[in-house]
Amino acid sequence: MGKSLAVSPLAPARFPDLPVIDGVTFATIAAGVRYQGRTDVMLAKLAPGSAVAGAFTRSATRAAPVLDCQAKIGGASNEGAAIVVNSGNANAFTGRGGIDAVEAITAAAAEVCGVPQARVFTSSTGVIGEPLPHERITDALGELHASLSPSGIADAAKAIMTTDTFPKGASATVEVDGRTVSIAGIAKGSGMIAPDMATMLVYIFTDAQIDQDKLQHRLSTHTESTFNCITVDSDTSTSDALIMAATGASGVDVSDNEDFDAALRGVMLDLAHQVVKDGEGASKFVEIAVTGASNDDDAKTHALAIANSPLIKTAIAGEDPNWGRVVMAIGKSGAAADRDRLSIRFGDVEVARDGWRSPDYSEEAAAAHMQGENIVIGVDLGLGEGTCTVWTCDLTHGYIDINADYRS
Amino acid sequence: MGKSLAVSPLAPARFPDLPVIDGVTFATIAAGVRYQGRTDVMLAKLAPGSAVAGAFTRSATRAAPVLDCQAKIGGASNEGAAIVVNSGNANAFTGRGGIDAVEAITAAAAEVCGVPQARVFTSSTGVIGEPLPHERITDALGELHASLSPSGIADAAKAIMTTDTFPKGASATVEVDGRTVSIAGIAKGSGMIAPDMATMLVYIFTDAQIDQDKLQHRLSTHTESTFNCITVDSDTSTSDALIMAATGASGVDVSDNEDFDAALRGVMLDLAHQVVKDGEGASKFVEIAVTGASNDDDAKTHALAIANSPLIKTAIAGEDPNWGRVVMAIGKSGAAADRDRLSIRFGDVEVARDGWRSPDYSEEAAAAHMQGENIVIGVDLGLGEGTCTVWTCDLTHGYIDINADYRS
Repeated sequence: MGKSLAVSPLAPARFPDLPVIDGVTFATIAAGVRYQGRTDVMLAKLAPGSAVAGAFTRSATRAAPVLDCQAKIGGASNEGAAIVVNSGNANAFTGRGGIDAVEAITAAAAEVCGVPQARVFTSSTGVIGEPLPHERITDALGELHASLSPSGIADAAKAIMTTDTFPKGASATVEVDGRTVSIAGIAKGSGMIAPDMATMLVYIFTDAQIDQDKLQHRLSTHTESTFNCITVDSDTSTSDALIMAATGASGVDVSDNEDFDAALRGVMLDLAHQVVKDGEGASKFVEIAVTGASNDDDAKTHALAIANSPLIKTAIAGEDPNWGRVVMAIGKSGAAADRDRLSIRFGDVEVARDGWRSPDYSEEAAAAHMQGENIVIGVDLGLGEGTCTVWTCDLTHGYIDINADYRS
Repeated sequence: MGKSLAVSPLAPARFPDLPVIDGVTFATIAAGVRYQGRTDVMLAKLAPGSAVAGAFTRSATRAAPVLDCQAKIGGASNEGAAIVVNSGNANAFTGRGGIDAVEAITAAAAEVCGVPQARVFTSSTGVIGEPLPHERITDALGELHASLSPSGIADAAKAIMTTDTFPKGASATVEVDGRTVSIAGIAKGSGMIAPDMATMLVYIFTDAQIDQDKLQHRLSTHTESTFNCITVDSDTSTSDALIMAATGASGVDVSDNEDFDAALRGVMLDLAHQVVKDGEGASKFVEIAVTGASNDDDAKTHALAIANSPLIKTAIAGEDPNWGRVVMAIGKSGAAADRDRLSIRFGDVEVARDGWRSPDYSEEAAAAHMQGENIVIGVDLGLGEGTCTVWTCDLTHGYIDINADYRS
């Protein structure tokens, strides 16, 4: 990525004010891993007592840092922990050298931070197949550690960006028995995004207290309906990861608190939506809401077939209420459908019902909905109770511009 | 489709000279189904004794003409037959009215041609969800029948086009015991092309003699390795169909002739390749050859994951030998893969081996291959004997131009 990309038209007006999370400090640096003139490594240090949970890509060709994190998550330890993330190089498909690079970075970070190596988690994002110049990272760890700050999360969100056009953050605060706990998260991702957890990098922090297994359970559950329900281009990354740490510094136990659970899902969904809104070339944010499927799995299969259809994504880019292509996508998805029970709406405009164009179909009304920035495609299969909602963006010339460039 | 599209740069220099097939006559007309100023209906009439076989889309939302053909193919009859095809309107998702339209067209064609209605096969291609003005077709049948000619196949190839930029034809002749039989086929298709038979319209004719069940078996078998191994955009049509007729007029029985079998597959593959070469916006013809998979099904899953990846297709458009994206696609496909046994080549240039960039990798050599018009991506999984080859095209601005237009 040599050039600067224009900021997505769907970007929020500004980066949100994220609360300081007791027990976490952040630092960033311009280590020159690949990019010049910008930060590209972040370090997050977690206080002793932190529970760490994670969710990861299921790619069969996942990268060395992912495999290393997966092996470590869930390990019993009450000691401190650290997260090291670099952008510019994914350390993926880098053979034995990739494993050695992870070993070198985690060993050095453990030493610098005074935490066990088994509690150092790394992520790498960027080009695949190039050796990671890991000494640029290990050389920078001392300076990083010296500059750790509780308020560094906004800078961290910038350091992990690749083709992102804006940094992504979200937060929530929850009252529990008159005391407040906070959640703050950051994410990167804009291409190679398809739902197979996580297809992006996401780091979420809270000062709440919760056991590792309960935290893991919540994270895994909510991942299914948030990060695993977004797609930009149907392409699943080899590298991506969601790591969440609960420092417990607030002393407030949220193990069975439903408000906390809802707030956590809210932060995850907010970050997931921001990734879609930074989808490469995106000009529209699209919700696909499927109801009436035989079961939830079928609903998701249909929703993703629609969300990943190049013909539908280009029609949305062209503001064309081309519901015939929605019929096509449902037909090809492989999940159960009965053409003659199907109904489709664009926004509030019903365009098809019972296998036929709606009797009161208005092309003008449907076209008016397509001209907005937020598009909703509703599909009811008329078969059962299965539902699923997924989010995507349109497919524009911008996507081609970004990805047809020489080695983006 | 109001505007004229530039002819694909991958188009053959000219439409081939197709042999006259004894027992088949063709006619075309400009019936104004949707388009103005061009032919849009073709009639093919088959002599008594013709065997008719077919293969059809498996879409769950397939169109009325497809359902009608599927019900009729394989029926025992020695009488004549007819094929009626219109472009401009797919008669898909048109409810009860769609079925009535097929009934009206097949009844009228049976009457005009003097064949049983159960031997009249129709196809429709074009916009989905609009009522088919079938009386424009039935009104034209008399004039069509009056102009039937054995040499009309080239005009037929033009009348069935939608967003195609060139008509598609292929042929073969085979010597059997000193006598010659001929095969001639035509096809249309350039978008909404993904392998789930047939994702296009294809009509193949031969004067060879062969039983219907044997013809059907050969057609189905070869469809798997030809039309079901191409993809333009992963989107499967609701409408498309392959119909083959063997008139038997040569009196040469080819039931067990291997040369005929090979020639038939050759014609099918040639037509399939032409469809890819007319892929919407295509600038490169791409072969994905997968070997060493655990089995043939896995090989096909990997090959299609690569062929349908927007990131790979845009990289090819940008002439970028971005093999990291090939690793990504293999990882996401869901079929068995072992990162550290994988090798990848672009043309003759090995770019990756054993989970790592090839030791003698030359970016220049790989880039040189990508600059050609015919791109070969070879992948060996190193796991077993499974193989599959599929064909696709790149994803360019032209695809967006064509499909983001208002109701193409």
